Amino acid sequence: MNKLEINEVAPRDGLQIESRFVETEEKVRLINSLSQSGLKRIEASSFTSPKAIPNLRDAAEVIKAVERRSGVLITALVPNQKGCERALACDVDEINMVMSASESHSRVNLRMTPEQSLDQLQGIVGMLKGTGVFGNASISTAFGCPFEGFLPESQILSVVESLLKIGVDGITLCDTTGMANPAQVRRLCETVLTEWPETPFTLHFHNTRGMGLANALSAWQAGITRFDASLGGLGGCPYAPGATGNVCTEDLVHMFEQMGVETGVDLDVLLAASGMLPDLVGHDVPGQVVKAGKADRRYSMPENSV
Amino acid sequence: MNKLEINEVAPRDGLQIESRFVETEEKVRLINSLSQSGLKRIEASSFTSPKAIPNLRDAAEVIKAVERRSGVLITALVPNQKGCERALACDVDEINMVMSASESHSRVNLRMTPEQSLDQLQGIVGMLKGTGVFGNASISTAFGCPFEGFLPESQILSVVESLLKIGVDGITLCDTTGMANPAQVRRLCETVLTEWPETPFTLHFHNTRGMGLANALSAWQAGITRFDASLGGLGGCPYAPGATGNVCTEDLVHMFEQMGVETGVDLDVLLAASGMLPDLVGHDVPGQVVKAGKADRRYSMPENSV
Repeated sequence: MNKLEINEVAPRDGLQIESRFVETEEKVRLINSLSQSGLKRIEASSFTSPKAIPNLRDAAEVIKAVERRSGVLITALVPNQKGCERALACDVDEINMVMSASESHSRVNLRMTPEQSLDQLQGIVGMLKGTGVFGNASISTAFGCPFEGFLPESQILSVVESLLKIGVDGITLCDTTGMANPAQVRRLCETVLTEWPETPFTLHFHNTRGMGLANALSAWQAGITRFDASLGGLGGCPYAPGATGNVCTEDLVHMFEQMGVETGVDLDVLLAASGMLPDLVGHDVPGQVVKAGKADRRYSMPENSV
Repeated sequence: MNKLEINEVAPRDGLQIESRFVETEEKVRLINSLSQSGLKRIEASSFTSPKAIPNLRDAAEVIKAVERRSGVLITALVPNQKGCERALACDVDEINMVMSASESHSRVNLRMTPEQSLDQLQGIVGMLKGTGVFGNASISTAFGCPFEGFLPESQILSVVESLLKIGVDGITLCDTTGMANPAQVRRLCETVLTEWPETPFTLHFHNTRGMGLANALSAWQAGITRFDASLGGLGGCPYAPGATGNVCTEDLVHMFEQMGVETGVDLDVLLAASGMLPDLVGHDVPGQVVKAGKADRRYSMPENSV
C-alpha cells in the first residue's frame, strides 16, 4: 500500500493524438529521459497500422533505439497478432492489448464487437506463451461509455473474467473519457481486488472533468498500487470530443510523494522531461506541478514587507 | 456526511485579483445567477480599502443591489472594524475575517503580525455581538506557507484555539497557495473535528498543483461538509507567483453529485453562470466540467461506425 508502480503512457497514448508527428529521435530522447526518472514501466509505442495511427508509424525504430535500463520495462500496445509479432521482434518486455467493455465504443473505436475483440486477444495471448513476455489487457470504458453511459458493474466484471479465462497476466481498468467518480472507483476496485486478489490490476484515469487525482486517491485507498499516467497530462480520446488529457504523471507522483507514498520516481527528472513537452508537441500541456513547482517550493519575501 | 454546504467565493476571492475591473452591474448579475443555483452562501465582496483592492471598491453598491433569496446567505470579507461597520450597514448575513497562521505570510499579506491580527479580529467580533451576524474567521496558510514551508500542526491548532477564545462562530482552514496534500488534509481535519466537534469548520482549497478535488475528497472523508469554492476556478494569491485558481465550484459540485453526495446546487444553473465568466474577466478559466460537459453527457455514434 505504501509503494506505487507507474506505467508511463505519454509516448503512446499521448503522442498518438497529437496533430504533429514527433520525430523518431525526439521520441527516443523523451523515452530515455522518462526511463532515467525511475518509472517502472513505459508504454513506448503502438504496433497498429500506420494508416490508423500515423503518429506511431515508427514504433519498431523507436523501441529498438531506446536505452534499455534494468528495472524499467518497455511495453507496447498491440491490436492484433500481426502487431504482436512486430512487438516481439523488438524484444518488448510486455505487451498491452485493448478491448472495450461497451459494445458501441468497441464498434466505434476498434471497429468490432467485444466478442470479436476477445477472439483477437486470445490469438495474441497464444503467441505470448513461453516467451516470458507479460500480456496485459486494458479494458476501455470500464467506468462509462460516451455513447451508452455508465455500464453495469456486472458487465465490467464479466469482461475481466473472460480476459482472465483466455490467460492475460494483468488487467488495466480504463476511465477512457473521464466519467469515473471516486465513489464508483472505490466500489469497482474493491470488488475486483476481492474477487481476483492475485491479478495485477492497473488503473487508468483521465482528467477530463478534473477528477483524475481524486480518482487515483480513491483507487489507492481501495488497495490499488498500479497506475497509468501520462507526462504533462498528454492524451485524450479522438472519439470523445471535449475530453482533455490523461492523468498527469508528474502531478500524480507529486501528490503521492507528498502523502508519503513511495513511487520510486525522481520527480525532478520527471519535471525536466515534462518541461520539454511544449516544444515537442507545439502547445502548452495541462500538467500543473511543472508550472507551480513542488509544494515544498519556497519564495523569497518581497522587499517591501513589514 | 451526505450533504454539503458550499460557500461561493468567486465574486470576492476570484474578482479581486483580475486585471480588469468588473462593472458593478455585472457583479450583481453574476451574484444573482449564483444565488439562483442553490448555493448556500456567497462571499459577495470585501470591505477593504479601495486602494488595497480597487477591483472591489464597489462592495457596498454590489451588496445593496443583489437580490436577497431566502436560504442564500450573503457574506463579505472584512479586514478591520471600519470594514465591519460598512458591511453591517449593508445588512450582510455573515462576515468573514482573515488572519494568517504564518508570521511571514501575515507580514507580507496583511502587513501585521498574527498577534496584531488577532487583536484586530477581537475588535470585529466585539462589534458583531448582539447583531445576529455570523462571524467566521479564515486561517490563511493552514496547510503551508510559501515563505516558511509547512507549519507544525500545533501552530494551526493554537490559532484555531485563539480564534475560538475571542468568540468567532466558525473557522475556515485555507490552503492559500495549494500546498496541501490529501494525507495532511485528512490528519488536520480529523484533529479539529475531534477537538472542537461543535465548531463549523470550512475547507478552502486551491488547485495550484492539481490536488484541489483530491483534497476536498479527503476532507469530506474526514467528516468535513463545508467548502469554499470559486466559480470557474477563478482566484489565486498575488503573493504566491505560479499559484493558479481556487478549487472550481462546478467541478466540486459535479464530483460530489456524481458520488451521490447532495450539494443542494443545480449544476446546470451553475454551469450557465460559469459560461459567462470568460467574457466577464476577459480570459479562459480553469474549470473543466464547463468544457467537457457532465459525466452523464452522451455522444452520438459517428455515422461511419461498424
